[in-house]
Amino acid sequence: MYFRALNRIFTKFSFTNKCETALYTRSMACSRYEYVKSYEQDDKILPNVWIVIRVDGKKFHKFANAHKFEKPNDENALNVMNAAGIAVMEEFRDIVLGYGQSDEYSFVFRKDTSAFKRRAAKLLSYVTSMFTSSYVLSWSQWMQRPLSYAPCFDGRIVLYPSDENLRDYLSWRQADVHVNNLYNTAFWKLVLESGLTNQQAEERLRGTLSSDKNELLFQEFGINYNTLPAMYRKGTILLRKRVVIGSQDEQKGRQAIVPIHEDLIGNEFWKQHTEILGKYVPGKYVVSSLNRHLERQLAKQLEKEATIAEI
Amino acid sequence: MYFRALNRIFTKFSFTNKCETALYTRSMACSRYEYVKSYEQDDKILPNVWIVIRVDGKKFHKFANAHKFEKPNDENALNVMNAAGIAVMEEFRDIVLGYGQSDEYSFVFRKDTSAFKRRAAKLLSYVTSMFTSSYVLSWSQWMQRPLSYAPCFDGRIVLYPSDENLRDYLSWRQADVHVNNLYNTAFWKLVLESGLTNQQAEERLRGTLSSDKNELLFQEFGINYNTLPAMYRKGTILLRKRVVIGSQDEQKGRQAIVPIHEDLIGNEFWKQHTEILGKYVPGKYVVSSLNRHLERQLAKQLEKEATIAEI
Amino acid sequence: MYFRALNRIFTKFSFTNKCETALYTRSMACSRYEYVKSYEQDDKILPNVWIVIRVDGKKFHKFANAHKFEKPNDENALNVMNAAGIAVMEEFRDIVLGYGQSDEYSFVFRKDTSAFKRRAAKLLSYVTSMFTSSYVLSWSQWMQRPLSYAPCFDGRIVLYPSDENLRDYLSWRQADVHVNNLYNTAFWKLVLESGLTNQQAEERLRGTLSSDKNELLFQEFGINYNTLPAMYRKGTILLRKRVVIGSQDEQKGRQAIVPIHEDLIGNEFWKQHTEILGKYVPGKYVVSSLNRHLERQLAKQLEKEATIAEI
Amino acid sequence: MYFRALNRIFTKFSFTNKCETALYTRSMACSRYEYVKSYEQDDKILPNVWIVIRVDGKKFHKFANAHKFEKPNDENALNVMNAAGIAVMEEFRDIVLGYGQSDEYSFVFRKDTSAFKRRAAKLLSYVTSMFTSSYVLSWSQWMQRPLSYAPCFDGRIVLYPSDENLRDYLSWRQADVHVNNLYNTAFWKLVLESGLTNQQAEERLRGTLSSDKNELLFQEFGINYNTLPAMYRKGTILLRKRVVIGSQDEQKGRQAIVPIHEDLIGNEFWKQHTEILGKYVPGKYVVSSLNRHLERQLAKQLEKEATIAEI
Repeated sequence: MYFRALNRIFTKFSFTNKCETALYTRSMACSRYEYVKSYEQDDKILPNVWIVIRVDGKKFHKFANAHKFEKPNDENALNVMNAAGIAVMEEFRDIVLGYGQSDEYSFVFRKDTSAFKRRAAKLLSYVTSMFTSSYVLSWSQWMQRPLSYAPCFDGRIVLYPSDENLRDYLSWRQADVHVNNLYNTAFWKLVLESGLTNQQAEERLRGTLSSDKNELLFQEFGINYNTLPAMYRKGTILLRKRVVIGSQDEQKGRQAIVPIHEDLIGNEFWKQHTEILGKYVPGKYVVSSLNRHLERQLAKQLEKEATIAEI
Repeated sequence: MYFRALNRIFTKFSFTNKCETALYTRSMACSRYEYVKSYEQDDKILPNVWIVIRVDGKKFHKFANAHKFEKPNDENALNVMNAAGIAVMEEFRDIVLGYGQSDEYSFVFRKDTSAFKRRAAKLLSYVTSMFTSSYVLSWSQWMQRPLSYAPCFDGRIVLYPSDENLRDYLSWRQADVHVNNLYNTAFWKLVLESGLTNQQAEERLRGTLSSDKNELLFQEFGINYNTLPAMYRKGTILLRKRVVIGSQDEQKGRQAIVPIHEDLIGNEFWKQHTEILGKYVPGKYVVSSLNRHLERQLAKQLEKEATIAEI
Repeated sequence: MYFRALNRIFTKFSFTNKCETALYTRSMACSRYEYVKSYEQDDKILPNVWIVIRVDGKKFHKFANAHKFEKPNDENALNVMNAAGIAVMEEFRDIVLGYGQSDEYSFVFRKDTSAFKRRAAKLLSYVTSMFTSSYVLSWSQWMQRPLSYAPCFDGRIVLYPSDENLRDYLSWRQADVHVNNLYNTAFWKLVLESGLTNQQAEERLRGTLSSDKNELLFQEFGINYNTLPAMYRKGTILLRKRVVIGSQDEQKGRQAIVPIHEDLIGNEFWKQHTEILGKYVPGKYVVSSLNRHLERQLAKQLEKEATIAEI
Repeated sequence: MYFRALNRIFTKFSFTNKCETALYTRSMACSRYEYVKSYEQDDKILPNVWIVIRVDGKKFHKFANAHKFEKPNDENALNVMNAAGIAVMEEFRDIVLGYGQSDEYSFVFRKDTSAFKRRAAKLLSYVTSMFTSSYVLSWSQWMQRPLSYAPCFDGRIVLYPSDENLRDYLSWRQADVHVNNLYNTAFWKLVLESGLTNQQAEERLRGTLSSDKNELLFQEFGINYNTLPAMYRKGTILLRKRVVIGSQDEQKGRQAIVPIHEDLIGNEFWKQHTEILGKYVPGKYVVSSLNRHLERQLAKQLEKEATIAEI
């Protein structure tokens, strides 16, 4: 008989009765190899600490050149980052704040999240994957040139026990964008407008203080650094808010991820957005009229939910 | 003076002399917040163990429905998975074997890899991100219907000290695809061809052994399960080989990621591909004529390198 | 020549030039085996969290029987525990509080300790070893019967991010001693004075509330539970204090580890001993007259320092 | 009523009904503080790797001086170490080999041990505590001078995936004792017999090779280094053997921990003691006549078991 031979082959899987039973309920295949599952190690994160996940573009200097990003800032490329950041926050409801600048994005899970049982690898890989996926999918909505190869991000998890630690983390990232952007703004002005070579521009800026670079931009290029777009100078903060438009009834406001470009180092920000460190209830965000980007992003969020609802 | 006021603002960053020096070399911004960096914890993986990273589709049951995957196997959807798997192996040269089935892909780093200093989060997030990115980018090459939302994958790292552990891990995954695919093949035949409801099909299969399901397929649908496409029954093994085509000079063979669909539970596979467990030197792979898929994949690999070289 | 042969033997150690150099400075032996050192993994504890190490007697039920401990509490056996606890706090200056009850002792390192670079295994093993060593050495000072075999303790590290977590941890241990001691007091009264068997006593107490057991002690044995020795009911809290005796000049008070037996669940304790959670400065402890135990313990602490100074 | 007031106090423990129920079965006290237990983190060790625990004396240079250890080796002090090592192996049956030299002792748990569920902190703290406890208790059996203060040991866990790694680890420790002991032997000869100061002796030895030191010992002091006691040159290996004395019936041999002082770097040792790396069955150890130390140690092992049996 045909199946007798076949059966001999199957016996090498050594299915026990228990395994055949497991199949009744369509559970995972059972075999004598299954012991290898026990080699997975527990990686639950300590309770009651802020969980920060930061994704970083892999070799984005090269990636930016390959895709001809504008210097020193490519507004649309940053919009792709922000779209990906928003997608991550839509997916993972326990993220209370996102912060993006340059080719990196940080996400802050609330202290008491039990998402994925606080398993580090799950949290890390889901956030990194969702960010990557959304980055690639959002690309064509902002960029003219198609992706010439697959972008890649690494991710890391850092834990912060106190609110002060968390604020200092975010301040660190915002201080970083300030210092880098001021330098890059001056550098590319010197290269693109004054015709210096990269090396000459570097030499010119070597040893200068922040005030020197401000002065240089003002004197030589008539630029008041402080009036440049806030997104370039401050990065993008994503907050979960109940958005109320114009004179709309407050109760009708809908929850959305709102991008803002403010200073988060000082106390003002934390007084205005008490929901971040406090018991988590989304704050309110009143807009008199939507700007183009916010409108587009909110529209996308609405549309996405509609799509998902249809499925 | 204008910049005096501005400077007062900057002093809140508390740049030390050391930090201003750091700027000379364009290093990371320096501030009193930088201490938060020390909260990152070391996660170096024990030396001399096999590192397996497995990515898994998040809620892919729903994703498959939303994108109308064919049942029980969608050849093109599997090709997207394989394309993503190949991209990962092209990027990370220390992966000696990939294994994909259903919505999951496993990657085996050689025991002595020092990629990313064996830091777990780096390895995990890069592999997951590269897989995700390539999955989205490869989608349109195989699928008619566009992506309706961003797919997401989780990733995990498991360590295996011995070669036997590693073989058992891979055998576990291949036993899994065998059991599931046999069940699914019978199930969907009953539903799609015999007109049973899902529930009726489940009841019909409840308690059946592998041999029963083989018999059912043979008697009722004239199907010899063993002759169904190997990719469905065995999954896809990716190996790094020097590919030699036809009578071509062996020395001219070029290195590529080769997808094969064989049994890897028995000893035969390991005798043929000794480079996996041995000192790593890519094996040789002679093909008399390329099949359509392999051709396409190899062509893509060649093309990609050309593109990268141009940049 | 004799040493030529010997030298051949030594070459198997494969000393490199670098290694012979290392010997000049009497550093660790150098050999081709030294790579194994790199297999040690980093186990630094997250900054800014309370580090609690708790040691627990291994099979102390059996140990207590073998050494004929008095039931339900053996004052001298508890004194041995306290002596060991004090020794640990004398050795590790960053411990701000010790808490002992039954066969366990907890030690709280201040949040910002950098002792042993916060390496978990170092902290854990040193504390456990010092506790064990001091337990054995202190034994004969309190116990008549010699140790009939080596006592053994396990240790664990638990991290608490917030002050509230830490207080709750200590409250948990003190609630534990309350519940157990009330039960044990009633149980042993029933067995030792009313002549019940162990089983009968268990049945008698099954299902009783705390109030029932208080009532039973009061009605049947004339015991007001609350007046029993505080050490039995509350355990022992070790604090680092500047001890000032009687009308002594405050400035002459000397630092010592002071054992107290108070409620630490309520707020009163934390108001009185603000140095524990605050910036760490040892508190002051005024004693009108030393009780026997405290006297003995302080005397021992003084004596030990004298001994060490002599060496 | 008296107990009404008392009850009010107890309510602050917030015992739930569940907790009072728990008390029925004398389980751990239950309270609203119990959540802190969930902060303990899983630390299970990867399966299928060699687990090595090494304990090291804390500041033993000072300890040796304080207790006037003989230079360069104090036979009795080493015997205390060995006694402690044997006690650890008697207690933890899954240790297949112990190796001691100077103020350190290594213990090798068999790869597949499930002792304490392979929890790292349990294994580490138990071994360190048992070693410490036995060291203190064994002290007076070998040393004249009483302990003037509590000795302390740290412990660490290192994992080795392969047999080769394990052998290299042990070779590393034995190469260490060789290099240090040769140096120390020469150093103390120069100081104690030739009357050099410590500094002069150091200068004399600076830059010398092993062969130079051998030559020096032979020429100046008539010492053939290779004939010095093996315990000083090779350290002490503890193995679990079935000891058969003289012409005794082999079946009557009893299991014991046997100290040997051999080279373990070469292959000979591993051919003779195949039980270490092989499937674990204690090897056989035939002694024509017991030497004084072995006799004493075996007698102690027998006696201890008798004592424990009596309890």
